[in-house]
Amino acid sequence: MPPGQRSETVHRANLSAIVRELHGHQSMSRTELVVRTGLTRSAVRVLLGELVAGGLALEETGRPEGGPGRPSRVVRANAAGAHVMALEVSVDSLAAALVGLGGKVEKRVRLERPRGHFEVDEVVADLATLARQVLDREGLPPAPTSAIGVAVVAAVRRRDGFLPLAPNLGWTNQPLGDRLFGALGLDVPVFVANEADLGALAEIRRGAAVGERDIVFVSGEVGVGGGVVIDGRLLRGADGYAGEVGHMGVNPNGRLCGCGSVGCWETEVGERALLRRVGHDVDGGRPAVDEVLAQAEAGDERVLAALREVGTWLGRGLATLVNIFNPRLVVLGGLFGRIYRFVEAIVADQLERLALPGARDNLRVAPAALGIDAPLMGAAELAFEPILTDPAAWLSTPPLLATA
Amino acid sequence: MPPGQRSETVHRANLSAIVRELHGHQSMSRTELVVRTGLTRSAVRVLLGELVAGGLALEETGRPEGGPGRPSRVVRANAAGAHVMALEVSVDSLAAALVGLGGKVEKRVRLERPRGHFEVDEVVADLATLARQVLDREGLPPAPTSAIGVAVVAAVRRRDGFLPLAPNLGWTNQPLGDRLFGALGLDVPVFVANEADLGALAEIRRGAAVGERDIVFVSGEVGVGGGVVIDGRLLRGADGYAGEVGHMGVNPNGRLCGCGSVGCWETEVGERALLRRVGHDVDGGRPAVDEVLAQAEAGDERVLAALREVGTWLGRGLATLVNIFNPRLVVLGGLFGRIYRFVEAIVADQLERLALPGARDNLRVAPAALGIDAPLMGAAELAFEPILTDPAAWLSTPPLLATA
Repeated sequence: MPPGQRSETVHRANLSAIVRELHGHQSMSRTELVVRTGLTRSAVRVLLGELVAGGLALEETGRPEGGPGRPSRVVRANAAGAHVMALEVSVDSLAAALVGLGGKVEKRVRLERPRGHFEVDEVVADLATLARQVLDREGLPPAPTSAIGVAVVAAVRRRDGFLPLAPNLGWTNQPLGDRLFGALGLDVPVFVANEADLGALAEIRRGAAVGERDIVFVSGEVGVGGGVVIDGRLLRGADGYAGEVGHMGVNPNGRLCGCGSVGCWETEVGERALLRRVGHDVDGGRPAVDEVLAQAEAGDERVLAALREVGTWLGRGLATLVNIFNPRLVVLGGLFGRIYRFVEAIVADQLERLALPGARDNLRVAPAALGIDAPLMGAAELAFEPILTDPAAWLSTPPLLATA
Repeated sequence: MPPGQRSETVHRANLSAIVRELHGHQSMSRTELVVRTGLTRSAVRVLLGELVAGGLALEETGRPEGGPGRPSRVVRANAAGAHVMALEVSVDSLAAALVGLGGKVEKRVRLERPRGHFEVDEVVADLATLARQVLDREGLPPAPTSAIGVAVVAAVRRRDGFLPLAPNLGWTNQPLGDRLFGALGLDVPVFVANEADLGALAEIRRGAAVGERDIVFVSGEVGVGGGVVIDGRLLRGADGYAGEVGHMGVNPNGRLCGCGSVGCWETEVGERALLRRVGHDVDGGRPAVDEVLAQAEAGDERVLAALREVGTWLGRGLATLVNIFNPRLVVLGGLFGRIYRFVEAIVADQLERLALPGARDNLRVAPAALGIDAPLMGAAELAFEPILTDPAAWLSTPPLLATA
């Protein structure tokens, strides 16, 4: 390989290392950046100069994140320098957010929907409307958007955003990525991924799992999704469909699942299972869950008993996942994060009984820190990935203007 | 980084690429090596020269592996240039092999043992005896051995070969790696790993999964072990205990497992489950399994019905694994490889019903190609890893003489 090429490769990798650090932290001193990247002080100075000139970084006087002492020169990501659009399709709601580099949420909208199945056409049209709303900056030109990330409660073929199966949306074989690319008219790439995968990504970058390399993120809603990170990499599988932990077979004498199988984990621990166990309408949705949690809060024994049952099954399934993945941390998102304080002891007890020593010895379990927005924030992270990987390409390309 | 250092790093990486290719194939032409490694012809010539001088490669006249036409110059790994010792501790037998670079098995011994629990002291002493047997070359000086790889039916802390739990051996908290290092007296590193992990490694390198990057290897014996390869990397987990698929909870009303849990997959599909279903002594071991398979062969309806039950549970558990990992290939080892032709249809049917579309669409299931020796061959591959990763270090160090 000619020396020039190798040197350009190194240059791109070093720029990437700096942009990743800036994106992942609020601000830091140059010295911190030197320590974190392992680059020399002079290399950091030169590269930061390029990033500031290209609009991706800012240098200013301030207090480094978390640092003591008097204000000094700090560097930070320039949120205005690069934006992405994040979209989310969950069972109960649609959401959109415009997010700037560094994770700054410029604008966010969420549209609650009545429970039920919607046509893809309708969902795509609604998402396009939400996208226009977050791009609208009241008279200002629309923010240039480099990419679109989409979180969806479905198995997703990552290559092109095709959904072979979304039982909880009632969809099969939908080219969601292509449909959104057409409907949004932004002429930027659309990346689609499973909602739980993106929740895991967000929790690792900015939530309960910062600094961890081996986690299992399990999100309970109507469906139960999993996002698994192994040695810092998201588990995708051969075609991008991995992590469907809601469809572990846990009860051969159990209930029919939306996927067509019987006794899947989500039939024992998903939202409908909780509502069923307390005698509620299983399709009561978030209002019903809110009511159930309020009853638990008030000490309603029937609800607490139902939560113990859910907690027992939650612990059983987690034990299987711990035996399979030996993670350092299990993060419980969505419904599971909300019920965690009622089921913490029973989950710990099940893990103690059913998970293997070794795998369970250094295990922590924690509720998600980002709450309901974890998948949406993960969709933004997905869309930032090209800029984080190769900021040089972004610097050499004039920002694309939004055409919406 | 100074230019000299970078250049040395590249040199090591390129040597590694060549040694890995030679190790993985019987022989090839220089041109094939150029194509496979992406290195220039002149770089390959120089690096091969170093490897031939250092005793790791041979150039000779012959026919390239699988190639047509007349003999020409071919290169191959020099089996005599570097040896490793492979050891195996399974429930029914102990084994040892001396393996040369390129995977040549110089000598192999297997000691069948009556079923039952053995003291660690006894197993370590027996393995040391087997090791001396395979090192003994009848008057010749012992082959220099660069490392020892050990496959064991246990959860293994990979860092130091500590076993927190081996229910099917009756062991807890055993420092097997340290014990073997002391007993063998070879003064070379001892690497210990789970038997199914090593079976997966061997099947990927030399068996049913050559060329695959996403596989689940599931091996049935008394216990059921899993070795999972994700995008070419073995799943290890935070502490090296991952892949314990035998301890997925599949039947809440099931039987007590050796691990202390209830309804683990291995209680439904392991060797004892098969023998139980046909009314045999569950501890009959390999002779009993041989007898059962002979009866199946002869069309014994009771045995075939038992195999259908095992096959159903096998398919159920595999569906869970397919939903979680979305592998391209499931390789069935040990008992599962032996019964596969009797249960192939029922396993395929269960996967069709219970695995999600997407994950199952491009899935293949195949019996292991290496049979009972897969873990032992995987142990050899584990021990070769340092030489494959950094052959330069090996070339610069005089071979260690075996002291056994």
